This record gives sequence, structure tokens and C-alpha cells, in this order.
Amino acid sequence: MKLSQMYIPTLKEDPANADVVSHKLMLRSGMMRKLGSGIYTFLPLGQRVINKFQAIVKEEMNNSGAQEVLLPALQPAELWSESGRLENYGPELMRLNDRHEREFCLGPTHEEVITDLVRDEVRSYKDLPINLYQIQTKYRDEIRPRFGVLRSREFIMKDAYSFDIDEAGLEESYNDMYDAYERIFDRCGLEYRAVKADTGTIGGDDSHEFMVLADAGEDTVVYCDSCDYAANLELATAKVEAEKADEELEELELVDTPNSSTIAELMSELDLAAEKMIKAVLYENDEQVVLALVRGDYEVNEIKLSNLFDVVNIELAAEDKYEELDTVKGYTGPVNLDDVEVIADELVMKVVNGVTGANQREKHYLNVNPGRDFEVDQVADIRTVKEGETCPECGGTLEQTPGIEVGQVFKLGTKYSEALDATFLDENGKPQPLVMGCYGIGITRTIAAAIEQNHDDYGIKWPTALAPFTVHLLPLGGGDDVENKAQELYQTLNEAGVEVLLDDRNERAGVKFNDADLIGSPIRITIGSRSLSDGELEVKLRQSDEEMNIDADNSIAEIKELIANEIK
Amino acid sequence: MKLSQMYIPTLKEDPANADVVSHKLMLRSGMMRKLGSGIYTFLPLGQRVINKFQAIVKEEMNNSGAQEVLLPALQPAELWSESGRLENYGPELMRLNDRHEREFCLGPTHEEVITDLVRDEVRSYKDLPINLYQIQTKYRDEIRPRFGVLRSREFIMKDAYSFDIDEAGLEESYNDMYDAYERIFDRCGLEYRAVKADTGTIGGDDSHEFMVLADAGEDTVVYCDSCDYAANLELATAKVEAEKADEELEELELVDTPNSSTIAELMSELDLAAEKMIKAVLYENDEQVVLALVRGDYEVNEIKLSNLFDVVNIELAAEDKYEELDTVKGYTGPVNLDDVEVIADELVMKVVNGVTGANQREKHYLNVNPGRDFEVDQVADIRTVKEGETCPECGGTLEQTPGIEVGQVFKLGTKYSEALDATFLDENGKPQPLVMGCYGIGITRTIAAAIEQNHDDYGIKWPTALAPFTVHLLPLGGGDDVENKAQELYQTLNEAGVEVLLDDRNERAGVKFNDADLIGSPIRITIGSRSLSDGELEVKLRQSDEEMNIDADNSIAEIKELIANEIK
Repeated sequence: MKLSQMYIPTLKEDPANADVVSHKLMLRSGMMRKLGSGIYTFLPLGQRVINKFQAIVKEEMNNSGAQEVLLPALQPAELWSESGRLENYGPELMRLNDRHEREFCLGPTHEEVITDLVRDEVRSYKDLPINLYQIQTKYRDEIRPRFGVLRSREFIMKDAYSFDIDEAGLEESYNDMYDAYERIFDRCGLEYRAVKADTGTIGGDDSHEFMVLADAGEDTVVYCDSCDYAANLELATAKVEAEKADEELEELELVDTPNSSTIAELMSELDLAAEKMIKAVLYENDEQVVLALVRGDYEVNEIKLSNLFDVVNIELAAEDKYEELDTVKGYTGPVNLDDVEVIADELVMKVVNGVTGANQREKHYLNVNPGRDFEVDQVADIRTVKEGETCPECGGTLEQTPGIEVGQVFKLGTKYSEALDATFLDENGKPQPLVMGCYGIGITRTIAAAIEQNHDDYGIKWPTALAPFTVHLLPLGGGDDVENKAQELYQTLNEAGVEVLLDDRNERAGVKFNDADLIGSPIRITIGSRSLSDGELEVKLRQSDEEMNIDADNSIAEIKELIANEIK
Repeated sequence: MKLSQMYIPTLKEDPANADVVSHKLMLRSGMMRKLGSGIYTFLPLGQRVINKFQAIVKEEMNNSGAQEVLLPALQPAELWSESGRLENYGPELMRLNDRHEREFCLGPTHEEVITDLVRDEVRSYKDLPINLYQIQTKYRDEIRPRFGVLRSREFIMKDAYSFDIDEAGLEESYNDMYDAYERIFDRCGLEYRAVKADTGTIGGDDSHEFMVLADAGEDTVVYCDSCDYAANLELATAKVEAEKADEELEELELVDTPNSSTIAELMSELDLAAEKMIKAVLYENDEQVVLALVRGDYEVNEIKLSNLFDVVNIELAAEDKYEELDTVKGYTGPVNLDDVEVIADELVMKVVNGVTGANQREKHYLNVNPGRDFEVDQVADIRTVKEGETCPECGGTLEQTPGIEVGQVFKLGTKYSEALDATFLDENGKPQPLVMGCYGIGITRTIAAAIEQNHDDYGIKWPTALAPFTVHLLPLGGGDDVENKAQELYQTLNEAGVEVLLDDRNERAGVKFNDADLIGSPIRITIGSRSLSDGELEVKLRQSDEEMNIDADNSIAEIKELIANEIK
């Protein structure tokens, strides 16, 4: 394509309200524009990247035996009632009524629709397994859309759904998808990790997320420096190394602790380490109030806590719950606190002569000992692990790094097939619920994640597989020789099937170089009159910043070799 | 692909509630399933056809210089207020509120969004022309969804929008799109006509529809048997051939006409031809009541009537309007009827000594003469033309045939750019409104139209360009020789890039033949043990029903030749 004829409105300045690098660069390079909060239009350059990524995803999905379908975005609300998610999903589910006042929602995901589809059609074990996928626009009414397409309200997803006769079949389908995802992200040249993950509003038994490692990531990847263990911080566990201190149990003591409603204040007030503190936090869900206890140097992990109770969300208790239980926020503790379920983290049970809130303003107990001074209803891993802890699998050291979730695979099991009564007849002619998996890749999100991982101060550094153009031709000066060479190269490269963008605009060199860096094609070829008269073209590789001259007369062969090397 | 591994749930019987052939066959062949009223899921076979057609559309759009983008389906309602269509579009526009109670609509079309996009970016005549297109899911809340994807509520469209500096530029962009559309429908092997069309809710100055000729068409194409004239019946005109009869004007006479509130009853009661009758119909729009007069052998054309008043819809007047005007439904006429604008069709003005309603129950006037007995405010062409009338351009004869609208091109002019203040600076630095065109193709609708035009009692007869598979391999009997030959052919054809479906199921011959006819691949190759032992394969061409045997050992070359010939 010729730049003069393409609609690529680049911006010199960072746009206001663009909060992360990918958001800024997608706007500045003319890939997209904002229509409303969390709603974006993709311009020609952005659409080219979407097309490229979609082609890779489709190829690998087809190779894995999955079959492409297209499910509606408009979903009857009754289906969501059947699965119980119409209420559970909450306000992120966009809802509307049609002209006859029938209720619909705009699909954020398609478990209900696909299960409804197959429940009427798949009758026998002989029809299984099947795996159906689509690439489709999805809707999620984020409370605070941000970071461009990393957290938007209308976005493109690839979602796949597998149906098997048993758990062993699901295991195979799940592994096939896992492998396909690795091939997809490998082909895109992305640095990523597959990590154990929470199943959230989708539900199910087991899940992995594919995380592109990048500073802007909202997620934290916990991984072992010695083995393959990797998990989302939401779910990561560590080996409990702490032992109970070999101390005499002292007598419980009530002390005044003015101005010490936080662990840090308390540490300074009492001159004690955080490891001695028992932090107590009140939570509530629809059914009950829970007191969560973690050691003072840890935070309560709300996902782990939610999963204990098999609810989607558990929230910090409201003020009135403190009054009902006759305690005081900032001074809550398990000693003499009734009518609440007490969940203690494993490490809390190792504390000897600890400190905790006394349920009275500006008072704490010293020498608190679990079991002696308060009862625990349940001991569980409910803390967020910290960097440097011990790997639960091999004893290595756990590291942390920010990541962007670009894909997730779930073993759903029979959650949806049982709710929607989707069965098949087994070899004995008996109806059995279908065993399901589901598998998502955020198409637009992956593109943003690729930019988060591949950029510098000047613009995008596209991995070749995702680049809108492979070669950026930049003629300078505008003499006849330069123009002729540019046209010749443009035509020859096009004929050779190389995607090339020719900057044929009548602009200053600075403008052209800046736009080339911004757009970020892997290979930039400058055709300048001086080097051309020496029989040479100037090449710069965007990823490595490497510069070199190539023979102007034999340039096609050299460029093709560069492209082959550039595919990382 | 192997049929045993593909999700193609064919049906033996016509499904209930499927009202036209394409609807039945898309369900029966396993291309799609219904999720809700006017909402369909595309299964693997249907999705393959969509992919094929989209690829053709993209290729021709790109070749014409249009650039692919992707606009959001969620559109802020304010944009539709700016253009005035939030009210005008009516209940077909699906509306919803987000969690912050901001109003949105689901785009049935994207004039507002695209105009909003370019108004902030396109600054100079140097940036023009541009043409942006997308392939995207659209929403229209049809009052009565029917005919499968021919009239559905969620559907796939290709829509393109051109921006030019003046009318001459628009003319060129319009013609480029018109030509691209011809290439697209030609490549699909469809019999179609481009016809003059109404601009409806989109608006603008000039428009053509692309009509696939098929019996199930809801539209009627009027075309000349001698010249290129073709128009939608909504808009078609004919030359006025009738002359005033050379009769003495008789005296106006009031007569009793019991039980004669229709033209047919009146003809029998008075023993007069319909050509003598002046049919009078009351219409209303938001602003006024109108009396439309056509000759008794014609119908009022409501589209022509609406266009006279520059409103989107004009409706039959409600009962209370008859009372207000002191007339009676079934006996309305222009004589002595006050407070109403009278629009007479051209042919009414030729009536001498006619008959019309007397605005009293069971009474008509005889010997009515326009001008003498009633005043006409406006004479216009407001009748629906009939088969056999005279071509307005060449004097040939007008024919009619049903058609399915699969594409439409519009000269929008400055309707949206003026409403949304989208200007560019001309060569003199003065702001001018962008001159726009818009261009749509119904992706899913074209596929249904192709089936309406290409089928028989047994199933679909796909044009090769749209066929989900080119070759259907049908091994019979299951001996080793047959199986080996089938596998060999399957592999060789796949390697040659031929899309082949192998029916490897363990089914009876009848079932296999029925499914092959239903799915409708252009070339069916049966591998039977008897003909194979004679060194032959049996070929049947789906379009022509032609059958032939080919040499089993040299089959690939012969099959490739057949494919080349089969592309119509």
C-alpha cells in the first residue's frame, strides 16, 4: 500500500486520557480511535493487525480439529436464567428488551448458547468429541473501562467449546487447546507463561491463563525459579515453612493502643514484627459474615476466600456488620467475638504469643494464641503469596512478574450441561451429561499486549507475524533515481508477496522517520540519493535497532533473507 | 474434511416454521440453527460459506481501493440524535442503557459513526477521496422476522462509506462501488439485476439495489424488454400513454351503490370498467392528511407518495380522520371534500365522466370530471406500475420479476456531513461539507438468495465460488479397494488445494446420496466397487444433473478440468 492513499492518521503527541503505552501507541499510530468509553473503532492499520492475528488463530484452531461456527451476540435472557448466571453475572452483563419487551443480553461469553445448541442435536457418544469455535464481538459493561482495548466494553474474542463423553476425553480436548494456544502465541513471537488460574464467573474445575509478560499487566504471574510451577497471584500457593516458635505461652493481656488501627502503626507502637500480628478482616457474602485471619505481613486473598465458599464474590463487610457483631473497624480480632465464622490462614496457626484487635476502640490483646484464646472454624490457605516464598511443588523460590491475560482455558465439567440438561446416550443407551471445556483468546487484547511487550519511546516494534506491514519503504529527497528505485522495489516486493508500505508522501524526512518508528514495521528500508549513488540501500531493523546497508541491485534477495531472520 | 468428524447435523424432514426454500435448506443441510426469532447460529458448513463469500467481498473491495476498518456495534444514542434518526428510525432501532444509564443503540447501519470518525480527522481536500468498509454484525428489530436470514434481526453486512470533495468525486466513488458489486455477484455466479431504488431511512439523492432474481423475492424488479431500464417496483415509472376519451362531459350525478365499497363491487354494480373509477385513499403523516387519487385499475404507491412529502413514512389515515373530514371509509372521494390536500396520479387527469365516492355511505358520484368537479393540489406519478406498461426511457414493454435485494448503493450527498458538521478545507481554505456515499451488501442474505436461485427438490446446488466444498467424495460398499481409493483421492485432492468432503460414515447408500444432494457440492464423485473394478469413478454435476464416468487412474486431472468448467 502507498501511505498517501491509506487512511493512517498518526498523531505527534500522546493523546489525553490514554493511560498505558499500548493505548497511546494504538491511537498515535492511527490503528484505532475511541467512539465512547471502552468502545473503539479500528482503522485500516489496526484492522490489518486484527486480520493477521485472526488468521493465525483460525489456522491453529482448525489444525487442532476445532470447527468454526458463529453464535449470535443477542442472547435470550431465559437461557441465562436456566444456568443461573442472569443474576450471578451482575451489572457487567449488558441487557436490553426488544420491541415486544422480551429480555435479551449481549453475550460476554457463550456457554449457555452453545450448550443449548448441542443439547438438541448431539444424541449419541458416537457424535463426540466435538469442539466448536468462533471469532466474535463480545460485550462486557466494565464499571471502569480503561487501558484502551486491554479493558474495553466491546471487544473481539475467539472462544471455543469442547464436548466429551468423560473426564479423560475432556483432559485430551483441554490439552489439545493448551497446545494450540502455545503454538498461537509462539507464532506471534510473544513472551508468555501459562499459569494456573481462578475460574471466576465462568466456573468449572480447573483453568490456565496465558499471560503475556509486560509491565502494564494488571495480573501478577507467580512462577518458580527452578521448576514449571506458575500461577496467577490470585491462586498461587507456597509451601508453609514457618514453624511455631519455641516460646512459653504468656498470659492474654489487654493493652491500650492509641492511634494504631493499622499493622504498621501497631508495629511501631508495640515495637513488634508484623509476623507477630494476627490481622482480622470481616467479609460478607449473601449468606454469612466471615472473619478472615492472616499474619500481619500478608494480605487476605479474596479469590481464595471466595472459592472456599463457592460464591463468585465475597466483599468487605459493610459498617453495620461491625456494629451487629459489637466490634470496631481497625480493632477487630477473633478473641471473644461471637456469631461469625472464623477462617484462619495456615500461617496464623503458627503464631505464638501474637497480637490482635480487642474489638474495642484503641485496644489490642497481647499474647494471643490460636486454639487457646479463640476457636478457628476452618484453617485454609487464604493469603496472597509473596515474592521469595517457597515453591509448593519443588521447594524452589517463587518470583513474581506482571502479566496481561490474553487467553484462558477452562475445564467446565458438567456445570452447564447439568444446568441446561444437555445429555448424550452412552454405550449402554443411558443419558449422561456432556463433559465440557471452554477456551478463550482475547483478539484485540492480545494485540495490545503485544505492543506492551514490543515498543520503545518512539513507537511499536511489531513481531513480524502481527506487523501490519513487513517492510516500510522510505524514499528520501525525491530525485528521479530515488523515486524510480522506490517504485521498482515497491512493485517487486508486492509481486513477491511481501507486505510493503511505501511512504510516498511529500513530507520532511523527520516526519517520515517518526511515522516509520511509530507504525513499527520490522524492516525499514531508506532510499536516499547519496547511498543510492553508491549502489546501496539503508536498512534498519525495528526490533534490534540494527542498521546495515544492502546492495541496491540485489536488494530483493537480501530483503527476503532479512525477513526470514526477522521472524522470531 | 471427513464428514464423520464434522458437525453437520442434516435433517430428513422440513423443519416446522421454515417458510421459504432457503430457510428450509439452510436448516436441513445443517448450515444453521435458530436461537430466537430472527436470530441464528451458523454451524461449520454455514460458516464455511460465509468465509468464502466474505473473502470475495474483501478482495473486490480492496481491489477497488476501499480500506477495511471495524466500527463498533454499540453506538452512543447522542450521535443518532445529531443526525435526527434516533426518532426517525423507529422501533427497528434496538436501544439499551449501560450501567450508568447512558443510552446506546445497536447499529443497523453506520453513517453516524463513520461521519463522526472522519469529522475529527479529515481536514484537507488533499486527504480525499477515501472509502472505508467493514464486514460486521448488524441489528434491526424487525416487527416480524421471517424467511430465515432473509429477514432476520442479527445479520452480517458489508458496509462501505465514501468521502469526496464534490459531486463529481461522489459519482466516481459510486461507480467504482457499483462496478465492484457487479464483479462480486458475477464471481458468485448469481443471476441479478441492478435497479433504481428508493433511499428509505438511509436517505440521499440516488440509489441502486442489486437484486438476485428468485421466486421468493419480497421485492419486485421492473425491467424493460428492450433497453437497460430497471427499477424497484417501489419506484418504477411508466410512460403515460392514455389520452382523454373524446366524450361529451355529462352532468354530475349522485347514485345509490349499496354494498359497493370496493372497486370490484362497484364495477359489477355499475357495469363499468375500472379505468372509469377514481380510487381515493386517505393518508396521513405527522403533519397533514392527504387524499391520494389513482385510477381504479391501479394501486397507490406509498413510497412515491412518501417521497413527495419528504417523510420516511406515510400511513393510511386512522378512522378518526374520516370522521373529522365528514366522509365515510369505502365511499371517500374528492368531490366536496374540504380541508385535505388532493394528490392525483397523472392517469386520473385523463379520466372523463368517471366514478368516485360521494363521502356518504353507499353513495357514489357518476360523471365526475377532474378540474370541473374537484380541484387537484398536485398532479404526480403516485401509482404502482403494472406489467406490460410502456418503458419510460425507450418505449419498450415493462416486465416484472420477483427479486431479493442483496446489495444497495446510495449517493448520500451532504445529508450526514451537514447534520454532523463534517467538513474539509477546499483549495481556497474554505470549509465544505464532505460529499458522501454508502454501499451495503447483506452477507448472510446473499447466501440465502444464492440458495433461492440454486436448488431443486433435493437440496442446494451451490455455485462453485460459494460452495462449502467443491467435491463430495462418496465411497460406497466399504470394501478395501473402495476405501483405499477414497483415501487416496481425498489426500490427493486436499494436497491439490481442492476443498473436498469425504463421506466416510458407515451409512446406507440412500442416506449418503440424500445428504450429498442436500449439502449440494458442485461435483459428486461416487466410488463404487463395481465401477472401480472397471477402472472408473462416477461423477455427477449438481448444477446440471449431468452424469459421467472418469478414469480412476487419471482422476485428478479430470476432476480439475471439471472444476474449471464448473465455475460459472
